[in-house]
Amino acid sequence: MDQPVLPLGAPRGERADAVRNRLHLLTTAREMLAEQGADRLTMDGLAERAGLGKGTVFRRFGSRAGIFQALLDDDERAFQERVLSGPPPLGPGAAPLERLIAYGRARVGFLVAHREIARAALDGTQPVPAGPETPLSRMHIRMLLGQMGLGAADLDVLTVQLTAALDGPLLLYLSASDLTQAADQADERLAHGWQDLVQRVCRP
Amino acid sequence: MDQPVLPLGAPRGERADAVRNRLHLLTTAREMLAEQGADRLTMDGLAERAGLGKGTVFRRFGSRAGIFQALLDDDERAFQERVLSGPPPLGPGAAPLERLIAYGRARVGFLVAHREIARAALDGTQPVPAGPETPLSRMHIRMLLGQMGLGAADLDVLTVQLTAALDGPLLLYLSASDLTQAADQADERLAHGWQDLVQRVCRP
Repeated sequence: MDQPVLPLGAPRGERADAVRNRLHLLTTAREMLAEQGADRLTMDGLAERAGLGKGTVFRRFGSRAGIFQALLDDDERAFQERVLSGPPPLGPGAAPLERLIAYGRARVGFLVAHREIARAALDGTQPVPAGPETPLSRMHIRMLLGQMGLGAADLDVLTVQLTAALDGPLLLYLSASDLTQAADQADERLAHGWQDLVQRVCRP
Repeated sequence: MDQPVLPLGAPRGERADAVRNRLHLLTTAREMLAEQGADRLTMDGLAERAGLGKGTVFRRFGSRAGIFQALLDDDERAFQERVLSGPPPLGPGAAPLERLIAYGRARVGFLVAHREIARAALDGTQPVPAGPETPLSRMHIRMLLGQMGLGAADLDVLTVQLTAALDGPLLLYLSASDLTQAADQADERLAHGWQDLVQRVCRP
């Protein structure tokens, strides 16, 4: 089965100065994040430090949550490249069950490491997740399940179930009141939970 | 393990006339739903037909979506009673795996049958689901898993995974563009997918 083409690339046909502004804003936002943490990153502060107008920042990101979403999208692209063409077992070359375990573990690690950004990108007005917000997870899980020969299972439904089973505990973790505590334990517990689940589901 | 006490009952200490108004409004809303469908049920229309002020309807439900949420809550209470004290295998008296299968099947049937109401109750401003929005699912699934003796599994994580795996496909179905088509097939496909998943997960 071909690898899916995912809609996560940079917008096409962006003009050169718009591309430059975007990169400059994201780089500046990363500096501010590293120095001051997510809570202190505002639209006004970003515009001022980047030396650009507030209107430019607003048009680019729409809202404060939009800044964090853009940072997340940028890192998502790098994550996606590791999945599509990085070394196994996350990338191609390992058995499908190994890749499925590695994918969930890497996804948990990515989102726990990005917990501050991911949380700030969730401003509470998004529609329900578990939908097309996770195209990479869904398409990748579907592809790997298809390679496993799971007998009579309804692979499309199983794909949605497993995608939700991966995202659900992560969303619950990200919506918890205190994220700074016990990030390492959460990471390992969620990763282990994923491995246990898919081993149970996919055993012959 | 004791059955959990769930926070779904009618608000306590409601004054008698408020209770009467609430029942009258819900009954009127159900009549309008049956006659005209969800799309035509508005705050103004409900106030007029119920012979109550718009302010009363607004204070009671907050928004149009709130009307549908109240109808759903009302039916949720009846559903909950079937789970807690109705006949097996949904109610007590069957083996835990049988009850788990019956629970997911009944939940799918309930939400597919309530698809118009459930969809109208989702106005896109809710926070992420998969959290405390499904206290019954989470507590009930946790209790049944605990009765199964699943070895070394992390039952709390598995509970969140299975709750999300039950809700995820349902949310995807409810957010699809055309719900009227193929509700019967969706019902059976999601119910069968649930049964297949939990049988895979819970086999010894």
